Amino acid sequence: MKRLFAIDPWKLKMDALNKEEKRLQESLTSIGNGYMGMRGNFEEGYSGDTHEGTYLAGVWYPDKTRVGWWKNGYPEYFGKVINAMNFIAVGILIDGEPLDLAKQTVADFRMELDMRRGVLDRSFIWKNEDAAEVKFTFQRFVSIAQKELCLVRVTAEVLKGSVDLEVHPRLDGNVTNEDANYEEIFWEEAGRTLDAPVSLSAKTIPNPFGVEQFTVTAAMSNRLSGLGQTGSNESGLLVEETFSGIVSAGQKAVLDKHVAVITSRDIPDAEQAFFAKKLADEAAETGYAALLAAHERAWEERWTKADVQILGDDEAQQGIRFNLFQLFSTYYGEDERLNIGPKGFTGEKYGGATYWDTEAFMVPMYLSVAEPRITRQLLRYRHQQLTGAYHNARQQGLKGALYPMVTFTGIECHNEWEITFEEIHRNGAIAYAIYNYTNYTGDESYLVETGIDVLIGISRFWADRVHFSKRKQKYMIHGVTGPNEYENNVNNNYHTNNMATWTLQYTLDALKKVSTEKWAEHNLMEAETAHWKDIIARMYYPYDEELGVFVQHDTFLDKDLRPADSLDPSERPLNQNWSWDKILRSPFIKQADVLQSIFFLNDRYTLEEKRRNFDFYEPMTVHESSLSPSVHAVLAAELGKEEKAVELYSRTARLDLDNYNNDTDDGLHITSMSGAWLAIVQGFAGMRVKEGILHFKPFVPKEWLGYDFKINFRGSLLAVKVNGGEVALTVEAGPARAVCLYDEWVQVEKNAVIKMKV
Amino acid sequence: MKRLFAIDPWKLKMDALNKEEKRLQESLTSIGNGYMGMRGNFEEGYSGDTHEGTYLAGVWYPDKTRVGWWKNGYPEYFGKVINAMNFIAVGILIDGEPLDLAKQTVADFRMELDMRRGVLDRSFIWKNEDAAEVKFTFQRFVSIAQKELCLVRVTAEVLKGSVDLEVHPRLDGNVTNEDANYEEIFWEEAGRTLDAPVSLSAKTIPNPFGVEQFTVTAAMSNRLSGLGQTGSNESGLLVEETFSGIVSAGQKAVLDKHVAVITSRDIPDAEQAFFAKKLADEAAETGYAALLAAHERAWEERWTKADVQILGDDEAQQGIRFNLFQLFSTYYGEDERLNIGPKGFTGEKYGGATYWDTEAFMVPMYLSVAEPRITRQLLRYRHQQLTGAYHNARQQGLKGALYPMVTFTGIECHNEWEITFEEIHRNGAIAYAIYNYTNYTGDESYLVETGIDVLIGISRFWADRVHFSKRKQKYMIHGVTGPNEYENNVNNNYHTNNMATWTLQYTLDALKKVSTEKWAEHNLMEAETAHWKDIIARMYYPYDEELGVFVQHDTFLDKDLRPADSLDPSERPLNQNWSWDKILRSPFIKQADVLQSIFFLNDRYTLEEKRRNFDFYEPMTVHESSLSPSVHAVLAAELGKEEKAVELYSRTARLDLDNYNNDTDDGLHITSMSGAWLAIVQGFAGMRVKEGILHFKPFVPKEWLGYDFKINFRGSLLAVKVNGGEVALTVEAGPARAVCLYDEWVQVEKNAVIKMKV
Repeated sequence: MKRLFAIDPWKLKMDALNKEEKRLQESLTSIGNGYMGMRGNFEEGYSGDTHEGTYLAGVWYPDKTRVGWWKNGYPEYFGKVINAMNFIAVGILIDGEPLDLAKQTVADFRMELDMRRGVLDRSFIWKNEDAAEVKFTFQRFVSIAQKELCLVRVTAEVLKGSVDLEVHPRLDGNVTNEDANYEEIFWEEAGRTLDAPVSLSAKTIPNPFGVEQFTVTAAMSNRLSGLGQTGSNESGLLVEETFSGIVSAGQKAVLDKHVAVITSRDIPDAEQAFFAKKLADEAAETGYAALLAAHERAWEERWTKADVQILGDDEAQQGIRFNLFQLFSTYYGEDERLNIGPKGFTGEKYGGATYWDTEAFMVPMYLSVAEPRITRQLLRYRHQQLTGAYHNARQQGLKGALYPMVTFTGIECHNEWEITFEEIHRNGAIAYAIYNYTNYTGDESYLVETGIDVLIGISRFWADRVHFSKRKQKYMIHGVTGPNEYENNVNNNYHTNNMATWTLQYTLDALKKVSTEKWAEHNLMEAETAHWKDIIARMYYPYDEELGVFVQHDTFLDKDLRPADSLDPSERPLNQNWSWDKILRSPFIKQADVLQSIFFLNDRYTLEEKRRNFDFYEPMTVHESSLSPSVHAVLAAELGKEEKAVELYSRTARLDLDNYNNDTDDGLHITSMSGAWLAIVQGFAGMRVKEGILHFKPFVPKEWLGYDFKINFRGSLLAVKVNGGEVALTVEAGPARAVCLYDEWVQVEKNAVIKMKV
Repeated sequence: MKRLFAIDPWKLKMDALNKEEKRLQESLTSIGNGYMGMRGNFEEGYSGDTHEGTYLAGVWYPDKTRVGWWKNGYPEYFGKVINAMNFIAVGILIDGEPLDLAKQTVADFRMELDMRRGVLDRSFIWKNEDAAEVKFTFQRFVSIAQKELCLVRVTAEVLKGSVDLEVHPRLDGNVTNEDANYEEIFWEEAGRTLDAPVSLSAKTIPNPFGVEQFTVTAAMSNRLSGLGQTGSNESGLLVEETFSGIVSAGQKAVLDKHVAVITSRDIPDAEQAFFAKKLADEAAETGYAALLAAHERAWEERWTKADVQILGDDEAQQGIRFNLFQLFSTYYGEDERLNIGPKGFTGEKYGGATYWDTEAFMVPMYLSVAEPRITRQLLRYRHQQLTGAYHNARQQGLKGALYPMVTFTGIECHNEWEITFEEIHRNGAIAYAIYNYTNYTGDESYLVETGIDVLIGISRFWADRVHFSKRKQKYMIHGVTGPNEYENNVNNNYHTNNMATWTLQYTLDALKKVSTEKWAEHNLMEAETAHWKDIIARMYYPYDEELGVFVQHDTFLDKDLRPADSLDPSERPLNQNWSWDKILRSPFIKQADVLQSIFFLNDRYTLEEKRRNFDFYEPMTVHESSLSPSVHAVLAAELGKEEKAVELYSRTARLDLDNYNNDTDDGLHITSMSGAWLAIVQGFAGMRVKEGILHFKPFVPKEWLGYDFKINFRGSLLAVKVNGGEVALTVEAGPARAVCLYDEWVQVEKNAVIKMKV
């Protein structure tokens, strides 16, 4: 655990620069607007250890696969959102020396990320040997009111003496990826203009895989008070303007850098410079203050719909808000071509691609904290990529659609046979998200018009991927990796088999509602659905009568079973201390596996079944995936295991803020960030949606005074407050709602408060 | 199938250059002397598609591991015997134009590898537009009489007209590996001298893994008749001498290039040039003819001990001799630091490292075709590397010694978790070879003095690698890959479990014979051996009562079992036509797995058990490993399945000569080359060694008239001839032998022939 920023309900604040933890600071102060974002890098540059990273959503490069031993069926490339042009850069020279906090000691260093407003501030006082003093302040935001805009304000206020100041706002495309497989540079210049606003265009290098090349153009309109413009410079992949002059005590220079960033995802190459310049000019026209105000209003709207308050625990409060802030900064459903990368705009690891995390862990939260439209975009993303999913199945010699483990286009990017070919439960999660959306929103139109295409593709995959064991007279699924990636290539993983037949049944149910045209379009005949029914009827599920539990996979119970607390603390986390061989053969579980099924298909299991499986599996679970604690917290809460639920909540809520896994320097765990929200809302508050009705069974963790949150449900904005020994429900917007609270029906009217004792 | 060379009992002959199959020609005409060797490259160079490859035994480089996704326990590098200095090179210019068969058409092209003599010849007639004609002949051999020497003779006989001839014998260290992970050049120059004999020294580049750098020095003494020396040249990593002059009809120029190659494995860097020059000078002094004669005598001796004759089938005859020739060219037990690389000196694939192939497939043949000393060297090689094997186990967090899948030093080089960590049956093969040697030779001294160290290390590994299943009250071995690499990460592979307990028992038996000092040296206590006994007593072996077969692994019988002949021919070989996913889940077997145990521990099984297991597994076996057919041929022969035995024999005997697997262009399948020998001797002739006695039950395949071979057994050289409806046994050297022939005892006296009807 390492805490870099002070506790505060709405802010991340630090008042000393920790050069040892520069990368961690950068990850935590990342900002973004769904369209673009960057790590908390310093505008003036930093010559010490740093990871400069700017990322543009959906702008990626197919990096040639690196593999030791090729296996038939491997993809040709690993796509990654690549480090893009640094457009926040503002080089600063004082008396001819570059300002560089790696080399110079400054006073009163302060850095602050205001999550309510989405603004990053930094300031310090620079002094020289002649006792001149300059106070520098930096402020930036990427506008959520207009996605193409990033604004930077730099102020240099001379407190004592007088300095010769040079300021170089620049656009710098000379950037590399730390994780390039073959140390390639992924950008080449595509043009630059020096007429204000200056612009720079960069294009991704050609690739042999038929993936489109992306072109990006940034233009900057710089307004500077207190200094005069003295020129502009250019070189390969770089343009900059220069402002300079003498500034003396009591004077200040203020730079407002208005940057507009355009990509070929929206605007053809030839028009980019025109549009970028136009936008930059308009922004400068509108002015920094007005742009900031619009941005702050938009954040306020988001918080109104989604804020969670925790009373009596500012650590927890900061944690949940940080998670929501970073999630919304990564994705707010504006663009159906986009999804949610595991590190968002905060780092390179996992290549910014789409994982099943989205369907399993993001959708359940976005459904409640934002309009249905946003979740529907996530579903449409997969629908759009159905062709790619059919391609992936064909690569394995199989029918139907296999959604990829890692992707930008639907085509698989990951190359480990035990994951790429085997972690196919992901297909179940994609199908489940369609159910989840439909069940939550009550809107069947997506299911019957669009989602059904995905369901048919996935069902066809399952039907071909099973085999029939003549010996056991059962259908089986061999050679899979379940959600517990600490085992590979197992047979009859309960969760996978379960999600396979669940998908087949859900597809059959949905098919009753779709048009005959859909059947025809997919060339679907009764013989095929009859086969699906046979698979449902004769699927094999490993179950142990004696223990009364679903068995993780065929031979799991033959292992040397023992609880995780029998491990020596020095062995934890296993993935850093044990060989892969030892991990695979051990009984220790990385994340929910049988319990993932019980989390997804909660209604299907009795409380007794839930309890037996939880009590059997959770003690062997080491929660070494950031996706693990939330699922277990929700189930523990349901089973009345409050202490366990709170323990697991605490493992997810401040994962990055307290750097629990010692890897936040690589970037934030964006797709785990719904964990704390799920633990509170589905866990502590016990929220479920059954047959169109919201259910709650809230309790307050002992350490807290209370908590409140808001739920967007079928057009109503429902506020739930749990504190002072009672639950209070209010509809703040939209129609009144009948809600089931502690198994009792209550009618919640608009702006009226319904209260019940906890 | 592609046959490049004509059928001949002792030779490989071709009379046309096939430019399309240049690499295949090069592989098949490789020569070597255990110390060094090279592909059948042309001395004068070749500008078309070619793979120039010269390899020096034990001279390797640790190439940094290339891997997509790192797993704890992976090795840091993959060692490979690297392409070394080209010392056969003789540049030739005629009238100023380089001789280059890729560009020039020549007449009467002939190439011939004489396996009896170990000599490679090539000739052709060059003509120009002025009707000048020159007959070129090239001859070379790497001496098995003096390992450091390679001799090249080039003759240019002018048949018509007159030419200006320039000849450049050279040493060229500018060579690269086609399989370098990161396209590095592995050599740097270490010095050169231009005083005759000229020399060149090259050193492997530094590495970060603490692996020694190798230095190699070659010197050449060139004797040329018919041309005068006109100079010498040098440049980075290259030295050459130049001879030139006008040669007219009826005259000829003859170059004898005497090359001596020294490595830092034998001679310190500083002394290498001195020794290489001295050897090259002495060789020139002795003269080409005398050196060739000594070389030929040495080959004659080898053949006397090992030749196999097949009557009535020259294809088969050529096949078995080619295999023996290439095996002896690769390894003849001179150096205990060496082993047998899968491609010998014939290519780069598999990196020239040591695999379990040696113990499983080479040892059984070398025991019979050469003195025991040669096999003992192979065993000593592993004993020497015991420290590395302990290291490998420690890397997995385990006790004892884990012999590597791929190695030069004992330290593992391979990085696929399913192989590196899991294909641990190799440890059983290493132990088995000690038993095989001891059982065959009757010499227990190696076992009790040396082999026991290896056995204790391996036993300790097994004892830690098993786990106890409380549920089944049995010891188990989870997470392994058996010899059938078409399944990975299976539980309780019969062969692995079987070899584990077999090793423990053999170690316990051997421990009764060793000194108490050995016990003390290994800190071995009764408690530890008691634990081993418990593992032996309570090991779990998958067995199916109904089928009466040992089960390949826990869930094998749940597969969709079907015979390989149900596959469409277009699907074969599976490894080129199916995804890895499909292969893994299929019932199809790459090579003997349960049957490997039955092959190794033949005595332990009843004929009925052998038959049931063979009949169950062989039909599902696709024999896509070059190591597969021989084991099955031996068992088929034992079971009286003559047709099957002959079919399987034919798949191994001419594997490379007929390029069955379409990959011989990469190099020869050296470690599969004992297959034909095993099929004949252990298969058709039914040879076994039981309690110190040789047993035979020969039959003659329908297609043949007969066959004969020789067996070196406990100091006797026994000739076995099977033809004309009878078996004839003779002791040609050493003491008389009692032999069990068709279950009858016969006493075979020296130089007397015992005959019995087939």
